[in-house]
Order: sequence, then structure tokens, then C-alpha cells
Amino acid sequence: MNFKSDNEAPAHPRLIEAIVAANSGFATAYSDDHWSGQLDAVFSEHFETACQVVPLATGTAANSIALASIVPEWGAILCHRQAHIENDEGGAPEFYTHGAKLLTLDGDNGKLCPQRLADAIDSSGSHGVHNVKPALVSITQATECGTSYRPDEIGAIAEAAHARGLAVHMDGARFANAVSFLGVSPAKASWQSGVDVLSWGATKNGALTAEALVIFGHPEWLEGMHRRRKRGGHLLSKMRYVSAQLLAMLADDLWLELAANANRQAARLAQAIERHPEARLEWPVEANEVFMRLAPERLAELRQQGFEFHIWPGHEDLARLVCSFATSDQDTGQLIDALQRPT
Amino acid sequence: MNFKSDNEAPAHPRLIEAIVAANSGFATAYSDDHWSGQLDAVFSEHFETACQVVPLATGTAANSIALASIVPEWGAILCHRQAHIENDEGGAPEFYTHGAKLLTLDGDNGKLCPQRLADAIDSSGSHGVHNVKPALVSITQATECGTSYRPDEIGAIAEAAHARGLAVHMDGARFANAVSFLGVSPAKASWQSGVDVLSWGATKNGALTAEALVIFGHPEWLEGMHRRRKRGGHLLSKMRYVSAQLLAMLADDLWLELAANANRQAARLAQAIERHPEARLEWPVEANEVFMRLAPERLAELRQQGFEFHIWPGHEDLARLVCSFATSDQDTGQLIDALQRPT
Amino acid sequence: MNFKSDNEAPAHPRLIEAIVAANSGFATAYSDDHWSGQLDAVFSEHFETACQVVPLATGTAANSIALASIVPEWGAILCHRQAHIENDEGGAPEFYTHGAKLLTLDGDNGKLCPQRLADAIDSSGSHGVHNVKPALVSITQATECGTSYRPDEIGAIAEAAHARGLAVHMDGARFANAVSFLGVSPAKASWQSGVDVLSWGATKNGALTAEALVIFGHPEWLEGMHRRRKRGGHLLSKMRYVSAQLLAMLADDLWLELAANANRQAARLAQAIERHPEARLEWPVEANEVFMRLAPERLAELRQQGFEFHIWPGHEDLARLVCSFATSDQDTGQLIDALQRPT
Amino acid sequence: MNFKSDNEAPAHPRLIEAIVAANSGFATAYSDDHWSGQLDAVFSEHFETACQVVPLATGTAANSIALASIVPEWGAILCHRQAHIENDEGGAPEFYTHGAKLLTLDGDNGKLCPQRLADAIDSSGSHGVHNVKPALVSITQATECGTSYRPDEIGAIAEAAHARGLAVHMDGARFANAVSFLGVSPAKASWQSGVDVLSWGATKNGALTAEALVIFGHPEWLEGMHRRRKRGGHLLSKMRYVSAQLLAMLADDLWLELAANANRQAARLAQAIERHPEARLEWPVEANEVFMRLAPERLAELRQQGFEFHIWPGHEDLARLVCSFATSDQDTGQLIDALQRPT
Repeated sequence: MNFKSDNEAPAHPRLIEAIVAANSGFATAYSDDHWSGQLDAVFSEHFETACQVVPLATGTAANSIALASIVPEWGAILCHRQAHIENDEGGAPEFYTHGAKLLTLDGDNGKLCPQRLADAIDSSGSHGVHNVKPALVSITQATECGTSYRPDEIGAIAEAAHARGLAVHMDGARFANAVSFLGVSPAKASWQSGVDVLSWGATKNGALTAEALVIFGHPEWLEGMHRRRKRGGHLLSKMRYVSAQLLAMLADDLWLELAANANRQAARLAQAIERHPEARLEWPVEANEVFMRLAPERLAELRQQGFEFHIWPGHEDLARLVCSFATSDQDTGQLIDALQRPT
Repeated sequence: MNFKSDNEAPAHPRLIEAIVAANSGFATAYSDDHWSGQLDAVFSEHFETACQVVPLATGTAANSIALASIVPEWGAILCHRQAHIENDEGGAPEFYTHGAKLLTLDGDNGKLCPQRLADAIDSSGSHGVHNVKPALVSITQATECGTSYRPDEIGAIAEAAHARGLAVHMDGARFANAVSFLGVSPAKASWQSGVDVLSWGATKNGALTAEALVIFGHPEWLEGMHRRRKRGGHLLSKMRYVSAQLLAMLADDLWLELAANANRQAARLAQAIERHPEARLEWPVEANEVFMRLAPERLAELRQQGFEFHIWPGHEDLARLVCSFATSDQDTGQLIDALQRPT
Repeated sequence: MNFKSDNEAPAHPRLIEAIVAANSGFATAYSDDHWSGQLDAVFSEHFETACQVVPLATGTAANSIALASIVPEWGAILCHRQAHIENDEGGAPEFYTHGAKLLTLDGDNGKLCPQRLADAIDSSGSHGVHNVKPALVSITQATECGTSYRPDEIGAIAEAAHARGLAVHMDGARFANAVSFLGVSPAKASWQSGVDVLSWGATKNGALTAEALVIFGHPEWLEGMHRRRKRGGHLLSKMRYVSAQLLAMLADDLWLELAANANRQAARLAQAIERHPEARLEWPVEANEVFMRLAPERLAELRQQGFEFHIWPGHEDLARLVCSFATSDQDTGQLIDALQRPT
Repeated sequence: MNFKSDNEAPAHPRLIEAIVAANSGFATAYSDDHWSGQLDAVFSEHFETACQVVPLATGTAANSIALASIVPEWGAILCHRQAHIENDEGGAPEFYTHGAKLLTLDGDNGKLCPQRLADAIDSSGSHGVHNVKPALVSITQATECGTSYRPDEIGAIAEAAHARGLAVHMDGARFANAVSFLGVSPAKASWQSGVDVLSWGATKNGALTAEALVIFGHPEWLEGMHRRRKRGGHLLSKMRYVSAQLLAMLADDLWLELAANANRQAARLAQAIERHPEARLEWPVEANEVFMRLAPERLAELRQQGFEFHIWPGHEDLARLVCSFATSDQDTGQLIDALQRPT
């Protein structure tokens, strides 16, 4: 029973169907195909505003290309200490930006605090060229702690950033889970709250490999993104297969349907943990990830029973349980039963 | 009728089947899955030697990561003036290598000449740190002119390179076509003739998006390749779908079967052009590309009749006709008929 | 009365004399001159071991070229949170290393703690290519807090680093001040305590502009340093003027004589502050920098009286007073008088 | 007798005097000193227009920082096949630009031909992101062949460049020699003929180490230049010594006086060669460099007699003779005598 990562789930059948449907006849290469050509319009409709879309195969590429197209090499990117771009991308943002600096901030529940952010920007860079120059704030939605920023929280961060001339990037590898949890429109969860560019993730949510950079109100960033996509080796010749996945995800709001299931399973686990005498939740469960404190020997038992999950680095009693579109009621039921079983 | 590029063909059904078959259950992410785990063994069997394989989504990534893992930033890469890495990758090799220099050489039929190569290496770099330092020779197989290096030609180039301390990279975006044309083993066409690292292309040959770096006798290059794959954003979380394509291509030598069809259609076109009173072949047809000289107005007519192909930049009377696994006897038959039809 | 920075002092007359003496006749360009040719031997004598020397014009270049020649782009550099390479070089280390990451650690008195360092290395990088890879520890001597590492402290850090495969770099912009304070040999303060490469600073100590990278036991790093010196634009055609400064500094231990004066003036200030009823020392004074806590209005008064110094960013009651070779007894006497004068 | 390079000459006494004069008292560090503060005004007066100046220690840094501040990493820089930035800077432009591409063109007498330049720009980059994008033309004045562009030649190149959206950079390592030869104003030789940014060289012309980037009409480039100067390690803490050299060079037009001597000596050599029965000039002598064809055995004799000079790479019968401010009538007289002496 896999609760290790939504990355380990397969692809949803409708994504496979979309690929099969796209596999017909010749199509112009390098993103000039019929499917890729629809992306701007379809995303613009879903986000209720004219936006531009750059299809990509990975979230690391989406994040890094976005950052590099906005932040000069002497710039600083402010993000949470637990951000994926800081900890899990092997230095990809530094590679694409040619050595821009990530400045990390603490914050409860995996979220940046607008005031601390404002202070950090104001107190940095006072020494001119000797310091790096704050240029962008990146937030993760849902966060690495499985929580979701509310629109007004995003708005406060964006206000602090914009007032100081910084752009706002959202790493939305689990944007679908956050939107589903919040019950707001994609527009409200992004540009209406001040997000300038969104890494819209589909892979963790049931695609084979498909992500999209969505740019709001900054068409001047596009050339840099297209150039970096090419130079990074991310301009697939047969881009149609990526774009077809993106379109399939948006069709009939499949992306929200899949995220809703993942969230629902996580919520069930959360409920069971809250009632559990020995376990407790580390952070509120507001998406598809559950962080559970439990005695290491109990965690070990669960693993022996075939439940797979990660232990949070440096915390032997903290388990991360991730649900996905492919997690069934039966899966979570079995884990709940195992948790409740006396040792 | 599309003769524009093998990149514009769809994927072969067996590749789709492989993806569907891989889409079952959970799998460890980031290339630690069952499919990716087989690559070294399966390629080693096909190449008759122990080799290491790095699966990737694009040829640009494969080439750039290979070059960057061998060539220092102050190094020089010697290649043909028409090489894809020089002309068509938007500077990706320079991006990954952090500004290594491509030194281009002329050569008949798109091929490097061993003697000219040796002279170029010997006469460069005589001024120490003021010059860039030759570090690698990159050859394209099949070449950008649709010709194929013979094993002894590769051997002579490799000898010139190795004797001077340079590594040998083969951009094998159309390696399948060359091997099929030459009728030699993959081993003979690569490491047995001195190739140190091969970008083994599958996308142009019928995959959705799948390439492999194959490393012969240089396991010390692997760490840099793995690190750069991550930093470049090319370590797909669901790598199984790429690896499954690679395995499907090798199974029952599908890759050679597909290349053989493409080559056969190209050969038919070549034969018709040779017999044509006004047309002529620019270069020998030794893979799946045909370069045809014909009066611009005749080319325009063909296009009006629905035949799609590229005009060689700067040469209005030079058409590039590319065949693929998906080019049928009927397709080439119709083009041949159109060519033979009096104007 | 300038206590702002040792960088603001002029050059010592003997350095000017050395430049005048070097200004005679033609000399081979690009570091192949008579003066540069002596550096290895002269430094080897002073450091009591065979070492290699790369003359450079700035400390930022020395630090960055050293780091880039040892640390791969996916590497991590561990340093103190207040390190110059982290805060004051505008991202130069990231530029030269192509985006390696600086991981900062806290530590009392501006010094790294060996145990915390060991823990940080051990707990980082557990996730393979997804993490950056610790590759080097950089310490500053004297530290940014005006303290000096004792040889056994350096030794403990080096042991923790070397045992884990990391190299040890010392940013010795004020190495002279530390050596003078410690009263040990340059050898003891560097390679005998485990330092692999030293940025030996002369500019802050009375040169016009002259620094040296000194490499102990790692000749394999030299090519990368020489190549990066050239690519960074730091291979001066008339290097003789830099090398002549370095030689003049070492001649008759001028470097230690100049540092001794700076230290002595700092010690006098420290003594006065310790006795002062309202002022106090923030950190022990173990080189040429004095960090004094004093009420902001008192600091303002001193400034009005013509004493120039920096306020520590974010601490309005913390003044940094820097002495140099050019600080006279009279200068410090006047400042001490002003401090003791009732308000 | 050194005719190897103007780089091998010492510094002119007035430059030394300027350094001695600057060596007085404290001065604000990092280019905020009294001397650096005058540069904009003094250069603006000399160039008869408001310009901005960035003092630097080397020509490689000046060229590379200029290029990187104008050309995106996916850009192309067009220059002559013999340009210093292409052949002699170890890849520094590629390092600073993060892998922009140098596209080289042939041209008589070391000069770019406006028409060929226009054609090269027009025919490149037709394939969008797959190609690099022409962004800047760089010309060398005086050229690597010792010739000087006339103002109208510069104007024609600039017109071709500007009409196509490219900027114009002049590598003026020997700008003084060209201006002296042409007998025109510095303004006419630069911005009035379309130059956007000039690397104004002083080192080869008698400074210890001093160059200046002079920016005409593009203040928006300054931030990038200042940031890159810092990140490249070129923001000297004691910049006053560089700026003082620049000011000394301009005072009383010393720079033109020194260049005039170098040119005069070169002209004397040229005259002797033209009259010589066996020797001939390879290119017109229009600055301070003389390229002489002469039998290799005769060149060897000259060397044995103590005349030092370089042989052009790949041409054993082509000697480069460089004169400098320090070349005396006696020096050239002796070389002329030796040339005329029967073997």
C-alpha cells in the first residue's frame, strides 16, 4: 500500500486515452501542434483571464525556468525554509538562474509570514552590489507541510512583494489539491490574489509527465521562458503528448476531481489520527498529505505490514503519508484499521 | 503527405502499448523503478558490452548533458559545421557546459575528415589559458546530410581524437537509421569503433519522447550526468514511461525494423531522383533523409500538391525529404509519381 | 579619523616602492615575468612547505576561483552565517561555481563549531541527486567578528571536513592579523592545521591591490584555477605589479609588522572599551577589528566629532571599528579620549 | 629589444606618479572614492557627450562585462574571425554571458565588411529558439591586423547593426593608437560613428593595469555592468589606483601622446620593410603593430640578434612587431639596421 508519494502513482486512464487520441497522424514539431496551440485559450478560460502557457515535462523545469526568466543572476529568491526549490531540486534553480541566491525564511505550517517576508526584504540588500538583490517571492501551494494558503494569505504576501518590486511565483505542484481544498476558483487561488506566474502541476495529480507554466499579465517574460525551455532541452519535438495531457486534465475539471479524491483520503486518515490515543497530526491536513507523529516502533510495525511511506528527515517519529488520485477507500481503510489495531 | 521531419510522425503503436503496460500500480519515482532498472542490462546485451544508460526525454538534453559531463567549461568541442549541436539546439550545449566552445570543421557529405580534425586539434590551443582546450569530438550518425559514417571512418576519427586526449561523442538521433543502413552490429557502429558515449535516439524513430545516453567504459562520467540530469530538470518523477519506451524499442529489434522502413522509403525516393531528368541528389542517401536539388518552381508545385518538406536554409532549390517509420509505400509512391509527372 | 575599513587605508610606502622598482624595462606578460616566477619559492619558504601560488587582484576573485576549482556546480559550501563569501561578494562564489550552494551555520564569535559542522554535513545530502552535495568548508581568518581561530580549532574543523571528504578553504583576507595575534607560524595557522587552500590577503593589510591563492598539497587544482583566472578576466597582462606587491609584503615579514600595528591599535581600543562604564565589547578583540556596543546617541556624537565607522546592519548600537597599518597611536588616542569624555 | 607586445612594456612614469599621488590618506572603498568619482565627468568632456564610465583592471573583464550586460545568454555576438574575444580570452566572453555564441566573419585587413555582416545577421536566426539570436556586433580598434577602421567604416557597420536591432561594441584595447592614426576626435571614432559601448584600453598604452568601459546613451546597461563587475571579482576595494591611472592618461592627452610615439615607431618599421627587397608588409600599418613577411631563416637570425617578436600562429614567415610608448627611436633604428644588413 503506497503512501510514499503521489509521484509513485500511475497515470489516470483518461490521460492515457488522451495520449492514444493524440497519436494519430503527423503533427508539427516543437510545440507548434494542434494540442499545444489550444493551451493558451483553454487555460485562459479556466483561469478567467488571458494568460500564456508554456508546456513542460517536469516541475523542476517549470520552477527553474520561471525563476530564471524573472530573476537576474544577482537576484535573490525568497522562499520558505522547506521549499522544494531549496531542498529537493539538486540546485536546479541555481543552475538555470546562473547562481541567484535562495533566501529562506521560517514560517508556521510551511507558510511564509507576510510580515517576516517584508522585514527580510527591507533588511537585505542595503549594501548595493555587495549584496544580492531581492527579486522574487516563491510560495508552494499546497505547502510542503500539506497545508494550503488561503487567498487572503497569498494576497498579503503578494502585497508585501509587489510593494517592494518583487514578483510572485507559485510552485503549484499540488495546486489542484489546494484549490480543491479551498473550494475557490483557480483565478482566486492565483492571479486574483497576486500570483504572477504559476507552475501548474499535473504529474503528481495523475498525468504521466506534464506541467505548465502559466503567466499572468507578464507577456514580456515569455521570450526568456521559450529560450530557456529550448536551451534546457525541454522543448520536446513531440510536445503534443504533453499538451494533450494538460488538456485532458482540464477537460470536465478532471484535475479537480482527481485532487478531490486524494484530499478526501487524506482527510479520512487525518480524522483517524486525531482520534488516535498515541498518534497526532504535525500540521493541519489541508490537501493530500498527512504528517503523523507516532512512536518509531509503531511506524516500523506499519511498514512491516506493507504500508509504504517516508520518514521526515531528522525526525524518526514523523511519517509523511501521501494520498493520490489512485488511493482508494480500501487503501486508507486498511491503513486506518492497522493504526487502530492494538499492538 | 509529410516529409518534413521524422519528428512529426506519431509514435509507433508498440510504444503506446508499452506505456499502457507500464501504467499499472505504483512505482518508485525518479528512475528507481522496475523499467529503468533494466536499462543497463538490456542495452549491455544489445551492445555486447557492459555499458551504463541514462534515460532522458530529449536529444538536446542527451547531447548537452553528455558534453557537459566530459568537457570543462574552458574546453572545446570539435564538430562538423552542420552539426545539430551547433545549429539547432539554441545554445543548449553552451548552457550545460557553461560556455565551452564549439569549433566547427568542414567536411564532405556532412562528415568530419580525420586528417582535418587532427590538424585542427594540433593547431589549436597553443597559447595555453588564452585559448580554449580541445576536449571532445562529436559526430552525428546518421549525419545531417543523410549520410552514414562507416565503422572505419568512425575509427579513424576516434583514433585522431584519442591520440590527442579527446573523448568521442556520437549524436545518434538517427543511429538506428545508420545501423540499419550499414548492416553492422550496434557494437561495431559505436564502442568497437571508438565511441565513448552515444546519444541513442528513439523519438525520431517512433517513440513519443525517449532518448538514452549510453556510456562505454567511462563509469566515472555517470555522477556528473546524473547530477546534471537533475539540475537540468530532466529526472522525471515517473521515468518508467520513458524507460518503458526504450525497452519496447529494443525488444525484438523494433528500433531496427522501424529504421529499415524509413530507410527503404528514402532509398525509393533516391532511386526516382537519380533517374529524374531535372532533379539530382545533393548527397548520397544512406539513411532516411533525401536531399534533392530541383528548380524552385517545381518544388513549389509539389508543395501545392500537398507534399510537405523543408527547403534547406539559403538554398531555394534544395529540398529535404525525411522518411520515418510511418512513411508508407503509398506515400513515397505518390511523391515519386508527382515528381515524374510532366509539368 | 577613519575606522571604517582597512580597505580605505592607502598603500604602505614599501609597496609603492616595490611597484616603482618593478617598473623597469620589458617583462613577459600574463604572469610569466620575473616577479611572478618567484612566488612559489618565496611562499613555500614562508609556509615551510612546497606550495603553489596564484597571484590575483582581489579577495573576491581569490575566494571564488578557489571555491569553483574544488566544488562541483552541484556541491555545497559550508560556512559561517556571517561569512564574507555569503554576505558581501554579491554572489561571486555562485557566479564562479555556476550555482553551487552556500550552506550557512551559526557559531559563537563568528567561528564554526566542529560538531555542528559535522552534524550539518552528516544530515545533508541524504537524498542523492535531489540534494546538493557538501564539498568544502570555508572559514574566515580572522573572522568577521574580529576573532581568530586557534590552530586546534582549525584542526578540529579540518578533521571533521576531511573525514567526510570535504576540502578546507580559508578566507584569509585578514590572515596576517590572525597570525600576528596568535603568534604562531603561517604554517601552523594554515596547512599544518588542515587548510588545503588559503586566500592570502594583502590589500587590507597595506597593498594597493594584491592577493594570493596558496595551494597546499593539491597541485591538481591548479589548472582549474589558472583557467578560471583567465576566464574571469583576472590574468593581468602586467602581473608583475601584483606579484611585486606580494613579494614586498613577505620581505622582512612586512606583512606581520603591518598587521601587528593594526592589532595593537585595536587592542588599545578594546582596553578602553572594557573599562568604559557604558560601552562593551561584543566579541573578543583578536585581530584588528573592534565591535563596540554603545548607545546610538553616543555613537552619533562620535561621528559628529569626525570619527568614521560602520554601524552593524540591524544593530543601531553596534559599531565596527577597524584599525589598519595606517592607524596611528594618535588616531586611537583621540578616539579613546572622545570615548572617555563625559557627554 | 622587445617587439613582442605592448603588454610587455612597463608603465609610463606619469602613471606611476599618479599612483603615488593617489596614495595619500584614506579613501572610500569600492569605487566611491574621489578619483573614481571624477571619471564620468572627465570622460564626458573628452568624448564631448555625457557618458558613463566603469573602471576595470583588465581588457578581458571590460569586454566580457560589456558583452554580458547587453547580450542574453541565447544571443549571438558577431565579430571578425581574428577578434581577441574569439581567440585570446580563454572563453571569458562565454563565461560572463553564460554561453552566448560568437559568430565569426571573415574580412580583409582584419575588418568586418558591413555587407557581409548584414547578410550574416539576416540569414541567421531564421529558426526561432532553435537558433541563437544575433544581439551585438563587436569590432576591434585598432584591429588585430594593425589596421584602423575609418569613421565611415564604423558608421556603415553600426548602421547595419542598428537597423537590425543589434548593439555595437568596440574593443578599444588599442583605441588610442587608432585615434592617433586617424587624427579624428575620440567622439568621431566612437559614438558619433555609432559605437554604443567602448572598452577603452590604457594598459597596452602605458598604464600598469587600467581599462574603462565607456557607455554612450545606454544608462540602462549600467546596473548589469556594476553587478557583473562585483560578481566577477573586479570591484577593487582600492579602486582609486585604477581610476587615478585613467585620469592621468587623459590629462593633457597623455594617452594620445603615448600612442603617437608607438605609431611613429611602427611607421618607421613599415617604411623600412616596404623598401626591403625580401620583406613585405602583410597588412597596412595603421597603428602600432607591424606584420612582416620574411623568410623564416631571416626571422630566426633577427631573433638570435636579440630582437624579440611573435610568429603568427600557423605562418612561420609572418612576424608581428609591436611598438609601444616605450619603444625608442634607437630601438627601431637597430631593428631597421639589422633588417637591412646583408645576410
